[in-house]
Amino acid sequence: MRREGELAAAIRGRERHLVDTLSRWVAIPSISTDPERSPDVRRSAEFLRQAALDAGFTVAEVWETAGQPSVFAQRIEDPRLPTVLIYGHHDVQPVDPVAEWEKAPFEALERDGLLLGRGTADDKGHLVMHLEALRGFLDARGQLPINLKLIAEGEEEDGSEHFQQLLAGHRDRLQADVAVISDTAMPAVDVPALTVGLRGLAYWELRVETSATDLHSGVYGGAVLNPITVLVEILAQLHDGQGRVAVPGFYDDVRELTPAERKEIADVPFDADEFAADVGAILGGEVDFSAAERRTVRPTLELCGIWGGYQGEGSKTVIPARAAAKLSSRLVPDQLADRVTGRVEAHLRRLAPAGVRIEFETISTGRWVLTSPDHPAVGAAAQVVAEVWGQPTRFVREGGSIPPVAAISEELNVPCVLLGVGLPGDRIHAPNERVVLDQLFRGTQAVGRLWERYGEMGRSGLSAPPGRPAQEPRG
Amino acid sequence: MRREGELAAAIRGRERHLVDTLSRWVAIPSISTDPERSPDVRRSAEFLRQAALDAGFTVAEVWETAGQPSVFAQRIEDPRLPTVLIYGHHDVQPVDPVAEWEKAPFEALERDGLLLGRGTADDKGHLVMHLEALRGFLDARGQLPINLKLIAEGEEEDGSEHFQQLLAGHRDRLQADVAVISDTAMPAVDVPALTVGLRGLAYWELRVETSATDLHSGVYGGAVLNPITVLVEILAQLHDGQGRVAVPGFYDDVRELTPAERKEIADVPFDADEFAADVGAILGGEVDFSAAERRTVRPTLELCGIWGGYQGEGSKTVIPARAAAKLSSRLVPDQLADRVTGRVEAHLRRLAPAGVRIEFETISTGRWVLTSPDHPAVGAAAQVVAEVWGQPTRFVREGGSIPPVAAISEELNVPCVLLGVGLPGDRIHAPNERVVLDQLFRGTQAVGRLWERYGEMGRSGLSAPPGRPAQEPRG
Repeated sequence: MRREGELAAAIRGRERHLVDTLSRWVAIPSISTDPERSPDVRRSAEFLRQAALDAGFTVAEVWETAGQPSVFAQRIEDPRLPTVLIYGHHDVQPVDPVAEWEKAPFEALERDGLLLGRGTADDKGHLVMHLEALRGFLDARGQLPINLKLIAEGEEEDGSEHFQQLLAGHRDRLQADVAVISDTAMPAVDVPALTVGLRGLAYWELRVETSATDLHSGVYGGAVLNPITVLVEILAQLHDGQGRVAVPGFYDDVRELTPAERKEIADVPFDADEFAADVGAILGGEVDFSAAERRTVRPTLELCGIWGGYQGEGSKTVIPARAAAKLSSRLVPDQLADRVTGRVEAHLRRLAPAGVRIEFETISTGRWVLTSPDHPAVGAAAQVVAEVWGQPTRFVREGGSIPPVAAISEELNVPCVLLGVGLPGDRIHAPNERVVLDQLFRGTQAVGRLWERYGEMGRSGLSAPPGRPAQEPRG
Repeated sequence: MRREGELAAAIRGRERHLVDTLSRWVAIPSISTDPERSPDVRRSAEFLRQAALDAGFTVAEVWETAGQPSVFAQRIEDPRLPTVLIYGHHDVQPVDPVAEWEKAPFEALERDGLLLGRGTADDKGHLVMHLEALRGFLDARGQLPINLKLIAEGEEEDGSEHFQQLLAGHRDRLQADVAVISDTAMPAVDVPALTVGLRGLAYWELRVETSATDLHSGVYGGAVLNPITVLVEILAQLHDGQGRVAVPGFYDDVRELTPAERKEIADVPFDADEFAADVGAILGGEVDFSAAERRTVRPTLELCGIWGGYQGEGSKTVIPARAAAKLSSRLVPDQLADRVTGRVEAHLRRLAPAGVRIEFETISTGRWVLTSPDHPAVGAAAQVVAEVWGQPTRFVREGGSIPPVAAISEELNVPCVLLGVGLPGDRIHAPNERVVLDQLFRGTQAVGRLWERYGEMGRSGLSAPPGRPAQEPRG
């Protein structure tokens, strides 16, 4: 008891430093999708490299990719100890519409136990959580009972295009017994959970062209095709009247949920009306599934952007030459991004009137992930989370996609423990992103306990039972 | 013959000056829809005021409105002579997409008998045509056989919101026997025509909101309504499979064309395939009408703009809070903008799913116009046009809308002669707007002859035959 109290106290002693470090890091606008922000992504990597050394990593390096830089760090205590690889990402989402932020998105604002700012929850907060847990552990104990590695990606929000290649190129240095990935959320502050499933992603752009130049709507109107009309008539046929995706074959590869799986989902406290009302949204989607199922274990086809013609003030009587949209699918077991892409593209092209010029581009894809809750590394994590939160740990599937998790699973062949402390109301990817600081503080406590538990279990104790896959998909 | 030769030669002598004046005026980016360009619209008015004095008007004033300034000018020779009021507009359309212009839109480029630049055809070129005709006439004859007034509006491209009020406030000073409005086009260089019909216009913005904030497409995707999906599903129901507008009651007030009217339209040379191919467009629209009818005498419902969500490079996995579109209708006799607005709004609201927040705003409206080809002022114009172009003059209905024509007809109760020298390929409202200089040169000749003819006819000769309306709608 006395040793545990020491550790907990040392980690608790890091809490103000955590808020301070995170606030300073939020000030670096590391938006990976915006080429003009590349210097900021690099500054963010440099910030993390230094912070990792300050926290107690003995090695910290910026790793180049063909895109944005990643950061690698390690602290090797003894090769015979288990090795844990932490994953997070240091890039952030764009911030538009900027006008809807309470404060400038890159000026962290602490208020009522929250920290607001782009990246506070997704995902800088999680990385700082790990750094402070390490520093606290070392302050209390002087050394770790495990070896610790960290890989922080710089383009997770841009589709992780170069991450798998980076892993493949550094497979030796990244070798580990277990990966702890912190980029997920829990259902509520009093419903602690580990994520054991993630949806995959395919993101596309559709461009429609009906003339070589913009046209006057009086001179041409009524006699020629309008690309916005063509586009909306195509896109309106992506869903049927029951909220189902109407692309032929879209659901062909979807693994059917067992009654037990559906019950498990239904048993997690989730108030769909409150979930929607909290952000002023309107429930919708497939009528045959609950909202909790629709947002986690069912595939989707969403329109993420649309544009064409005049968007300014007042009026412009124009028939534009072109219109376009961004579409994305969340994929579930056993869908494959390539097959879904082919079906969506074929459907869109089939719907286009003769003569219309269609371009369809795949922007990014990422595989879905399923982790076995029976794996001892997952079980140990569930136990420390239950201790810290004082409630039983649920195993949940999350609706988001973390393409690098699939990449880590495939390239490094390690079990992935998805230990994240976000909450549904964190507004990640949206204005006024925030993190609940108490979740981060509890997270540092859980991480400290987890390193201790993994040390006690040793390498053999962290192995999967024979004959059972720890993780799908496998490389 | 000798006198006519003198006049023609004097006007021809103005041609280089016309190109020069127009080029300098094009350099002033008088975009009336852009509040940031207001100082440029004012500079444009000042430019025109000075140019009118240089051309021979004896009075020239900038007239203020609640919006952009107009320019008034006059030259009174003798109160007993007929008075002609010229109408044009000195504001121009926005220039996006700027990247598609061959040269900067406000740097006039003369090439192959064309002058490229924003406003060369619509409508600065037409106003300069009148100025040079006046200057040439005075150079040859020393005085006019008529009194000449000019009113040039500063917000025609922004819906002419304050123009009718301006006319009402200056009814006395604007009094005239005939209005000559130059803001229209001919079917081809060898098919001279006068416009006797214009479509009306109603322009709206539709805004759809489904949540209070942008949402992460992984966390919320599948469980809530997506405003872009809602918007495209609504907009896709504006037309049926036959290209007809599907708004209930949309066609109720459309005056049926007589077989004679349809024949008149069919007799004007018009190659629909070439019309579309010239701008890389694809023919479309109502299957029961010819392309020539669809673009001139049939009402339309077009999407002029659409936007929502992420439009940048790469991907943003967002479900936006809002999406919106700009819609417009071209209206024909006997449709009324208010009634059509009511029907379109009701249709859109009926299509919206429960809970979706809909805003529908009317941006501007303008009435359709029909002029009688039998009016002597129109007949005289047809005669001079036939003489200058060496071909019989056609009477055509044009697809565009000139709300101020309806305003002039209503407020001043004068016949309107629509003498414009544009061509279908002028790309007005689009990148690479241009004017065919020979059309402008011929136009100056026609205007000079017309003033002479109107002088010969006198005030009594310019009156409409009793019992026949010269113009619809009437005030």
